[in-house]
This record gives sequence, C-alpha cells and structure tokens, in this order.
Amino acid sequence: MSLKPLNIGMIGYGFMGRAHSNAYAKVNHFFDLKYKPVLKAACARDEAKVKAFAEKWGYESVETDWRKLIARKDIDAIDICTPNNTHAEIAIAAAEAGKMILCEKPLAMNGPEGSKMVEAVERAGVPNIVWYNYRRVPAVTLAKKLIDDGKLGRIFHYRAKFLQDWTINPEVPQGGAGTWRLDVAAAGSGVSGDLLAHCIDTALWLNGDLADVCAMTETFVKERKHAATGQIQKVGIDDACTFMGRFKNGSLASFESTRYARGHKALYTFEINGENASIFWDLHDLHRLQYFDHRDGGLTRGWRSIHVTDGEHPYMANWWVPGLQIGYEHSFVHQVKDFLEGLASGNLAMPTFRDALRTQYVLDAVLESAADQRWHKVTTV
Amino acid sequence: MSLKPLNIGMIGYGFMGRAHSNAYAKVNHFFDLKYKPVLKAACARDEAKVKAFAEKWGYESVETDWRKLIARKDIDAIDICTPNNTHAEIAIAAAEAGKMILCEKPLAMNGPEGSKMVEAVERAGVPNIVWYNYRRVPAVTLAKKLIDDGKLGRIFHYRAKFLQDWTINPEVPQGGAGTWRLDVAAAGSGVSGDLLAHCIDTALWLNGDLADVCAMTETFVKERKHAATGQIQKVGIDDACTFMGRFKNGSLASFESTRYARGHKALYTFEINGENASIFWDLHDLHRLQYFDHRDGGLTRGWRSIHVTDGEHPYMANWWVPGLQIGYEHSFVHQVKDFLEGLASGNLAMPTFRDALRTQYVLDAVLESAADQRWHKVTTV
Amino acid sequence: MSLKPLNIGMIGYGFMGRAHSNAYAKVNHFFDLKYKPVLKAACARDEAKVKAFAEKWGYESVETDWRKLIARKDIDAIDICTPNNTHAEIAIAAAEAGKMILCEKPLAMNGPEGSKMVEAVERAGVPNIVWYNYRRVPAVTLAKKLIDDGKLGRIFHYRAKFLQDWTINPEVPQGGAGTWRLDVAAAGSGVSGDLLAHCIDTALWLNGDLADVCAMTETFVKERKHAATGQIQKVGIDDACTFMGRFKNGSLASFESTRYARGHKALYTFEINGENASIFWDLHDLHRLQYFDHRDGGLTRGWRSIHVTDGEHPYMANWWVPGLQIGYEHSFVHQVKDFLEGLASGNLAMPTFRDALRTQYVLDAVLESAADQRWHKVTTV
Amino acid sequence: MSLKPLNIGMIGYGFMGRAHSNAYAKVNHFFDLKYKPVLKAACARDEAKVKAFAEKWGYESVETDWRKLIARKDIDAIDICTPNNTHAEIAIAAAEAGKMILCEKPLAMNGPEGSKMVEAVERAGVPNIVWYNYRRVPAVTLAKKLIDDGKLGRIFHYRAKFLQDWTINPEVPQGGAGTWRLDVAAAGSGVSGDLLAHCIDTALWLNGDLADVCAMTETFVKERKHAATGQIQKVGIDDACTFMGRFKNGSLASFESTRYARGHKALYTFEINGENASIFWDLHDLHRLQYFDHRDGGLTRGWRSIHVTDGEHPYMANWWVPGLQIGYEHSFVHQVKDFLEGLASGNLAMPTFRDALRTQYVLDAVLESAADQRWHKVTTV
Repeated sequence: MSLKPLNIGMIGYGFMGRAHSNAYAKVNHFFDLKYKPVLKAACARDEAKVKAFAEKWGYESVETDWRKLIARKDIDAIDICTPNNTHAEIAIAAAEAGKMILCEKPLAMNGPEGSKMVEAVERAGVPNIVWYNYRRVPAVTLAKKLIDDGKLGRIFHYRAKFLQDWTINPEVPQGGAGTWRLDVAAAGSGVSGDLLAHCIDTALWLNGDLADVCAMTETFVKERKHAATGQIQKVGIDDACTFMGRFKNGSLASFESTRYARGHKALYTFEINGENASIFWDLHDLHRLQYFDHRDGGLTRGWRSIHVTDGEHPYMANWWVPGLQIGYEHSFVHQVKDFLEGLASGNLAMPTFRDALRTQYVLDAVLESAADQRWHKVTTV
Repeated sequence: MSLKPLNIGMIGYGFMGRAHSNAYAKVNHFFDLKYKPVLKAACARDEAKVKAFAEKWGYESVETDWRKLIARKDIDAIDICTPNNTHAEIAIAAAEAGKMILCEKPLAMNGPEGSKMVEAVERAGVPNIVWYNYRRVPAVTLAKKLIDDGKLGRIFHYRAKFLQDWTINPEVPQGGAGTWRLDVAAAGSGVSGDLLAHCIDTALWLNGDLADVCAMTETFVKERKHAATGQIQKVGIDDACTFMGRFKNGSLASFESTRYARGHKALYTFEINGENASIFWDLHDLHRLQYFDHRDGGLTRGWRSIHVTDGEHPYMANWWVPGLQIGYEHSFVHQVKDFLEGLASGNLAMPTFRDALRTQYVLDAVLESAADQRWHKVTTV
Repeated sequence: MSLKPLNIGMIGYGFMGRAHSNAYAKVNHFFDLKYKPVLKAACARDEAKVKAFAEKWGYESVETDWRKLIARKDIDAIDICTPNNTHAEIAIAAAEAGKMILCEKPLAMNGPEGSKMVEAVERAGVPNIVWYNYRRVPAVTLAKKLIDDGKLGRIFHYRAKFLQDWTINPEVPQGGAGTWRLDVAAAGSGVSGDLLAHCIDTALWLNGDLADVCAMTETFVKERKHAATGQIQKVGIDDACTFMGRFKNGSLASFESTRYARGHKALYTFEINGENASIFWDLHDLHRLQYFDHRDGGLTRGWRSIHVTDGEHPYMANWWVPGLQIGYEHSFVHQVKDFLEGLASGNLAMPTFRDALRTQYVLDAVLESAADQRWHKVTTV
Repeated sequence: MSLKPLNIGMIGYGFMGRAHSNAYAKVNHFFDLKYKPVLKAACARDEAKVKAFAEKWGYESVETDWRKLIARKDIDAIDICTPNNTHAEIAIAAAEAGKMILCEKPLAMNGPEGSKMVEAVERAGVPNIVWYNYRRVPAVTLAKKLIDDGKLGRIFHYRAKFLQDWTINPEVPQGGAGTWRLDVAAAGSGVSGDLLAHCIDTALWLNGDLADVCAMTETFVKERKHAATGQIQKVGIDDACTFMGRFKNGSLASFESTRYARGHKALYTFEINGENASIFWDLHDLHRLQYFDHRDGGLTRGWRSIHVTDGEHPYMANWWVPGLQIGYEHSFVHQVKDFLEGLASGNLAMPTFRDALRTQYVLDAVLESAADQRWHKVTTV
C-alpha cells in the first residue's frame, strides 16, 4: 500500500508552525491513511531563521516570499501560520493558485474579510480547513458524540472560559515575535480573536448557532512598549472579554476570556447543562471528560471523571494503551488525520473556511456590543 | 460567669427556622460568650405545625400571630424566617416595638422596600442583621482575611455562580411550603433574589461595590401548577439569571445563577483573580479554599487546596481537631456567635440591614437590565 | 408523643467528651425517636474543669469519682471517654451496676482484656456499643449498602490508610491532657490502637474478618519529654504501623497508619476493588464517595464523585437540602440515633463490645507480627 | 551544525517498539543535540509484520534474526523490546559485538541474570541504558530535583502503587502477542516484574536503596488458556503483589501492585513524606505534581497542584507553551535526549544496566519473601 504524497508549503515557523509540522511528521506513524504529508518547503521573511526551522523539521527547501511559495508547482497545500492580519491575502492568493489551504485560526480579522476568503476557496474549489484544533482533543470529540447520541436532552446552558495570566506584567511588550498577539494591527483583537475564538468554535460545533450576544471588554494595561518601535504606545487590544447570549436552540450562553486570571496558564473550560446530563471539560486536564447523568441511580449518581484513554474513545485506539494519556500536540495530529481522510473520501473535514466563518461573525457581534453597550444579533453565515 | 439570656422569638419553622434554631442551641457549647440565646417562642399560622416545631427544638411557647409575638415583653429579638414578601412588614413592626431583628435574606423584595426597613431599624436604634450566612463559612472568612491582608494586590476579575438543578422537572409546583421560592408573589424573583443575592453579598463584602451591570434572565418552564390554587399558572420568576458588570475598584464582574444546571445541587462558587494571587471557593466542598500565589517559587507554584480545619483558621479553634471538617450549619452558628459578640461590644456584626441593602439595589439593577436589555448603574446606598 | 429520657453519665471531658455531648444535645432536633438523652452528670477527677464542662454543655451535676457516678440510681447509661487503659475497669464495673455502656474506641488495651469486657456486659445483659463513629458517616454507610446490594461482586483488594502529621515535632510531649495518646501506659499502643483501629473496624464491617496479617512498626522519635514527670523518657508507642494480610473472603489487605505524613491532618482513606465496581472514601472530604462501576457504558465509564447529600442517602433526609454538606460531628449524632433506635426496638446497634472485640484481636496480631517479624493468624472472636 | 547519526537496530515491534521509535523520530525536532538517531533496521521473527512496522516508521531495512542484526556493521545501537526472558541473551551478544544497548525494563528475569548482563556491558565498555521511562516524566524529574534541593528534609515514608484492571476477565489468555506478560515463562513474574519494577526504580532513584522487604503475592485467576497451545494451563505469574520494607535512610516502604483494581487502567502513584514537605504523583495525571510544604504560612498551607508545563520545569521549555500538557510518550523522547547527551558528554545517562540491577535484586527479595513468608534482606549491587 504505497502512500500518496501531499506536499506541504508551510508559512511561518512559530508556535503553530511547530505544532503543525509535528502533526505532519507523526500522523502516518499512528494512523493508516492513503496520503502522507511531505514537508516540501518552509517559508518566512527571515532567511536564517526559516533555514534553521527547515533543517530542524526536515523541510526540503525554504522560501522567503510567500508569493513564490504559492507559485511553486511542487506544492499541494499551503499551511498559513502567520499573524491574523495576513491570513486573507495569503489564503485568497493560494486559492487562486489552486492550492489546498490549512489556515490557522482565527480565519480572518473580521466577518466580511472572512467572507471573501470563503468565496475565494469555494470559487477555486480547493480543499480548506481552519485549525480549530480543540475539536480533536479526544475528550472534546467524545463530548460531541454524547450530544449527538442524545444523552443530554434539551440544552439549558452553555458556558465557556479561556483564562490565562501571561500579560499581567506591564513590561510584556506589544508587537514582535511571540507578542504580536498584543498588537492590534497584527492580531485584530485581543483575547476575543485569540482565545474566545476557540470557545466559540467549540460551542457552535457542539450546541449550534448563537442568535444574539451582549459583551463587555476591558484593557487593563493601557500602554505598552512596542517591540518594533521601542516606544510606549496605546494598547489597542482587549485584555479581557465577557459576553452572554442566547443560542438558537434556546439555551443561554456565558463566555469569558482574559489574560489576567492569575494562576491559569491556558484554562479553557466548557460546561453544557442538559435536561438529562451535563458535560464539563478543562484544557488543563485535557485527557479527562466530566460527565453527569441524572438517569444513574439516585444513590450512586455523581460526576464521572472519564479518563479518555480507552480504545473505545475517539482516536485513542491508535495511540498507547488504556490509562496512558496523550497531550496537546495530538489534537493537531488528529486534525491532519481527518483532513487527509477527507481528501481521500471527498467529504471534507470540518471546520472548513465556511464553517469557521460563523465564529468570525460571532466575534464581530461581540466586539460591536462591547463598543456600543447594546445587544447585537449575530449575522447568519 | 453567668450568661445573659437573649430571648428569641422565631417566626417561621421551615428550612431556615431549623438552621437558625440549631445555631441558637449550639453556639454556647462551642464559644465563650456573654450572651446565651433562649428559645422563648416560635410563631407561625399553622398551630399544630408550630407546636411540633417548638417541641422538637425546645421553644418555650408558641404564637400564631406574629403581631402578638412582637408585642410580648419577654422577647428580645425577632428572627424572621418567612417568605420574602413578609420581611418588610414584620421587620418594621418589630423595630417599632424595639426588638432586635435577625432577618433572613434577601432583606426585601427590592431596594426601596429595603430602604424603609433600614430607616425603621436605624430610627428605632435596634441591633439588626441579615442572614447572609456564607460570610461565616471559615474558608470564606479566610478569603476575606487574605484580601484584607493585601495578598491579592490589584483585583482584575470576580466571578461567581450559584447552580442548582431541582426545578428542571416541570411537575415541581409553584407556591406552597417548600416551593414558595417559585412563586413570584411570595419570592419577588427567582434565582436572582434566592441565589444571586448570596453571590452578590459575598462579592460586595470581598470586593466592594458594583458600579454597573448588564443582565439576562430566562424562564425555561413557562407554566407550573400553583400549589395553593391547583391551577396551571404562568411562572413569574426567573429560572436563570446571568449578569456582567464592573466593580468600583475597576475589576470585572461575571455572575450566573440557575436552577437548570443538571448535576449541581447547590454549587455556589466564586473566584477572585488579583495581580499577585487568586482565590477560589466552592460550596460543595465548603471546608476547602483554593489559593494560588504567584510569588511562590516558579518550580513549585500551584493552586493550594487549603483544608480549612486548623486552629489558626477562622472559627476553627472552637470545633474539633485539624483535619475534621464542619458543614453548612456551622455558618449559622458563627453568625449567632458574631451577633452576640457584637451585642456585647456594641460593635454590631455585619451585614446589618444597611449593609445588606446594597445587595438589594444590585438586584434591582440586574432585573431592570434584564427587562430592558441595557446597562444599568447601581444605586449607591 | 412524649420522649423517654435516657440519663447519661459522662466520664471524661476531652475531645470525645465534647463530641458525644454534642451528639446527645442535637439528636432529637433532627431525628424522631422514642428516647431523649438527658445530660445528667459529668465526671472527671479535676473538679474545676469538670464543672466548667458541665456548665458549658448543660450537665445537671458533676462527680469526681467514676465509682460514685456508676453507683447513682439516676444514671441509665455510662459514656466512657477516658484513656484506653481505664476502659476495662470502668466498663466492667458499670456493667455490674446494670448500666448501659457507650465506650470510646478502642474497646480495650488488647484482646484478652476486651474479652473480659464482653463477658461482663453480656453477663449483665446491658446494652453496649463502641464509638467507631466512622461507620455512620453517610458516605461510609452508603458504601456498606452498595456492598450489601452486591454492586461490587467478588472482592480482590481492600486498602486503608490513616495519615496524620501532628507528632513530627520532637517537642510534642508524651502523657498529659491532649497528648496521652503518645504515652504507652495510657494508650497501650500508638497509631495502631488510635488510628488503625478505625480502619480495621470499618474493614471488618465492610469486608468481613481478616484471617492473617504481617506487620511492621516504627518509632521515629525515640525519646520525648513526659508531660507528667517533665523528664525525657523512651517513647513506647508505635509512630507508624503498616500491615498486609488476607481477608477470609480471599481478598488482600493493605493497611498503613502514621503520624509522620506531612500534609495530612486526619487522612483516613479506604478503597475496595471488586470484580464489577470499586469504592473509595476519604475523611478529608467525608461527604463524598467515589464509585466506579465497570458496567457503565465503555464510552462514559469513570469514577463518580457522589456528593452524599441527597435525601436518598443514609441519614441525609433529616438534615438540610441536597448539596449542603454535614461534617465530622454528625457521625456521632447518627450513632446516638441508631443506639436509641436499637434500645427502642431491642435490636442493638453495632458495633457492640463483642463486635468491636474483633478489631482488638486484629490489633494484637498486628503488634505481635511487628514484634517477631512473622505472619500471625487473627484470633476468631 | 551537522548531526552525528546514531544507527538504531530495533528488536521487537510491539507497544514498546512503537514508543521507542516515536522517540527516535521526534527527539531532534524538539531538542538541540549532537546526535541524530537513524532508524536503520527493525528486527523480528515474523517477516510480514516487521516489514509493515518498518514501513510505518521508516526503518530502512528489516531482519528476522537478531543475531544477524547484531552482526551488521552499520548498526551502532541495539534497542531490545522483546519479552523479558530474551533480554540477557540478546544484550550479552550485543555487548560482545560492541554495540550500545538500550534495553526495555525489567533488565532481566532476576538478579543473577542481570549481573551477567552488567558484566557483559562493562567488560565491553559499551554505553547502556534501561528504559525506566517514568524518571523522565517532567513531574517526576521535578520531584527528584525538589528532593535533591533538600526541600523535604528527613524522609519518613515512601509509598507507591501500580494498579490496573485488565486481567480481571478470566478469558484473557496467557502467552501470545499482547498477553505474554501473563505467561511466566516469558515474563518471569507478573505484576512484580512488570509494574512494581517501575515503582522500585523510581523509589531507589528518589529515596536510595531498600534494606529489607516483606511481601505477599496472589494469583486470583488460577488457570487460563495459553494463546500458543490453546490449552488451559496453570497461571504462574503473580496477579498482585504487596510489600513493605525499610529504606537504608530509615524511611518505611509500602508498595502494592495488582491487575485486579477495577477502575484503574495504569494508576502508578507514589508519595513521599518528609519532615518539611511531601510529594505525590499520579500517572493518570502525569503532568501534575502535588506538593505540600509545611513552611508555607499556617493560614494558606495546602497541597499545591503544580501544572508541570512551565518553561522552568524539566524538559518543558522545549515543548509548547505554559498550560499545554504533554503525555506518556514524551518520557521516552526525554530518555533518548538524555542518552544522546550522555553519549556526547561521555557522562552516561541513568539508569545504566548497573543502576537498574538494583531493582532486580529488590524484586528477587520480594518474590522470595512472598514464597517463604519471611523478611528478606536486599542484596547490595
């Protein structure tokens, strides 16, 4: 059974560039697939750095201009791991060049920009996906299955949080490698686009569309040095964002994100309360799912801590043995696996650009609401 | 050292009537005080039931008309454990009769009504307190101490939830004993006055006043049988209430309460994120306090689970030995202890009616905001 | 319904004297019973202290000689809360005087002494019980019910620990009030009689008799000042004791106790592994029971954290509402409740002296094994 | 910076063959090293299976006779992933051929056999290591660092457990792929060599040598079908093994392992109680370390749950960002990293064969003690 190569052109070499490269390198060791990603070229403006990156990961070549990468005939798929403000231009050009696209989240700077990207990939007919990797944490995939199996019944509440604490120190700069997420020009927004985007993607996947939202944002540290200019500048991003809302299925939404929650590094949690059962998940212990089923006998009813490492659990038969946990990086491996299976079957893995666009319009409504202090309807995609 | 008797007249014999009676009966066994509560009279309209209650708890006499109780010379203090819509009338009459008053929470049906009660007790100069008992859970009292000691630094976030699941079944009636909390005429509101009132009281105590709020409420089960009339009637209470807001100290508020969170019986939680440290507490494990201190060494920094049972911890030297937990009922014992010490010292224990009135005005702003879908400023007391 | 008084004569006023007095004072407030304990007399050698104790708890009279107390006609039941080395003499005398006896654990200094006590109470035909209070923690009682209901199937393992850390400091004296448990003359042994006795009692109750054991003990601090003499003396107690063994049902036993486990105040835990299900309990969160049922569906199988506060749970319908926990002291209230119901029904509550004697013989085998480093059979009662 | 290749010859393709191969494939992506493992050849008797394995992992060639593999000039290091009863023969031959050896645990079937292996590698002067991978779980490595830094003070207790439940079903066969661990001929012993070996290795590393032990074993299912013969045969392994003992530093040991603990898949836990601090770790949440420091202030003292994902934590700076956990497989990556660094520096990574031999002699003493029911001294290596 010889594998069909899928030649990857990677743009960017940061945190996500590493996470994706690792996924491409590992996926065929653990899953039986028809395709095999080939690390064909890595691309970034800094030649020395991209060369070091390519050598470390085994990319066969490097480029310093993404337009040249896109123009190469030997590249099948473009992986976009650059700051948010560059996604649209690159993705639209890649689509026009007939490349498949795997784009980091959030898809775009805002809904209208994302809509253009959706148009571009759909017009070109190229396979496309957005790296909302948390859908493929086995415990989260299991949550989806339990909901689809009807275990929860009518849903009353969906609440999610994404709490970090790494920007409390006012000496953290804005802009630059590692801190572009604090620069509104590059990131478009703060925790909303960076963190809430994940929460919203999972929520829409598990619980359907949001109808309307009401939000509040705050910037606790008003000025920071800019890494590029060296000057103290006004901070344009949101440090914290809280919103409430209503899903179309009638359940209530409660969301919060911040980078000022001392003690939490990357505490993404969600909880869903249904008529018959509830689910809770926590990124800090991502290999567990908490599940409460009211139909259990009254004497022994309790929250079950499911150690999601059994062969029956999503994706887990392909890893180690029961009881041995996997980690963060594996969610990316699973996404590549599903993307490649989608290519083989013709049934594209989610979230496509169109699917991910929904999150973008929720974010727009959230930020508009925070700005004018009113409830906003969410634009339907 | 002979103890000075404090003759109690208790109105009501339900859940809170029992909790308070137990506190009066126990307090002198564990604390050295100048006063000793004497269970002088219990009062309720149903003579048979109040007699049974009085016999069980050792009340010396019974009354079936609270006005008679208030008129009795041998009563020093009136304890109000009746539905919310009766608090004001009883309290104002009791104050006019010169009685001390210990009133169940919430103080009143709304802010203006509560203001009249405050005026009454202050005009009469009678000692008064409201039973926001959670302030006296040792772990919560410890949280207050840590904040007052400056351990947290600047506060960024305060979030609280109170989740229950006992009204999901639509067959639960509204009105009547045990379910008057579902009857808007008796309760005034639903989870906001019943549950969020606790969350708000703690928050104002720990973090100061709220400046403004924006809220959303929902009634999931629109009609229920009324226990009194036997008829299906529209439900007037809020089944769920979520609100966000800003404290005067600049921190953000995120609050939620519901009786539709499957799996949670009485899950009151709060978390405070400060610049240097964070605190988390959970009523389902009320004897623990979670504490994270960023100043701990980087290698061993982590959330500490403090088992609040050591002699150094608030109130605990008077109970058992380290490691042995107390429960829910002890918060009431501590409130009586502090009330009696306040009487002895002349420095009244908190929350007085005036202190508790602040919560009432937050609730008013919350419910108005939910009604008109706008942000509301909180009236300053 | 007038209650029948049961006149209590309490000997001792320490930690257990308080715990039992509280139970007598509270039990009728929460349970409907035919009997009502009356605090008739408290007895101890130190007249000033016993008077203060009597006043605090409402004992009607005091004695300074336990023989006089036993001789009193107005006393129905003797409660023995004195150091272990006095249990036998008092209990035998009380039995001969026809008094009911409620004796603190451990029953005796050793098996043969305990056997004489059993003979005495059985010859006299007086109701008797030993205060192994942990059987009446609702979560533990629930564990018993689940086992009796056959939920676990064949048992493979039973393991228990009781870990404390209060004697690590070598300055803690031996002998004297509060520290007589370190004086071998008063206590008979160290952690084995004090802590393992609890673990063994629960184990025999839940899992049947032990057949044989092999043990190891250690005394980490070899000399301590004696509180009575003020002199440095050799420590005669065991600071730590570990043993393994086999139950008659074929399951394996693993037990450990120590007062040198930094970080644990009173961490009594047990776990039972059965063919179909397992149970875990922990005194530091005594209101929870952990339960794993292999028959749950493979996808959602997990340890359930049961918050043992529902009306269906043992004893809990008589306390507050679901979600609100009780604490350590309530196990004593439940024991009094069951003792009084046993009196009324003629079916005595467990553990009687005879039932508790089994633990004594396990302890003897454990200590003998530690001394001669061999396996020992447990004497059958 | 060109990397020096280290040509690996892998024998075996099971669970461990995959875990090691993954480590070789990943290590250079995450760590800057002087060596780079090259997957030169995979070896096993079943040609079809070893070819499939080689293709999946990118081994350049295959062998079906390990003697041929060892004879190859292009192989630098032999990785032994075969059943325990083959380790000695292969390792001794490999040493004689001058190959480096990376041998799966346990090193040997028993101490004397292991001693011969130690002699062989030391005579040949070849680098050697045993795959006791848990030393390189970052939380465990952190525990070692805290102990070495003197945080715990005098040690009183070390307890460890390794609990599984996969052989409760009597239909699980003995012998054959995946179940050779139940066949005494292949495995040498049951849970002792398989699971306790891990616990002992960690313990000796963290707490020094054991002086003497006393053990108990049990085989719950007495007969099982043999996968090779298809016949019901007596089971020769230990299903469960419990032992106690004393470390040379005076602390007490309490160890237990079983495959009959319903609800636990691979629950390896250890706890160390020192004079000043205690440590607890749990394989089911391997990314956390529980730490209690008595020197914390009395009010806020508690067990700290350290999320071992910060850049300061061992190995973690090379993975993702704080808050994002790694999993089981990464312990093998770390072992390869340390082995390669040891090669480069000439300071071999632990545990070498000699270091791992200590565990073997503890196991011998444990099994002898279980057989003759006496205490046994541990042979010093």
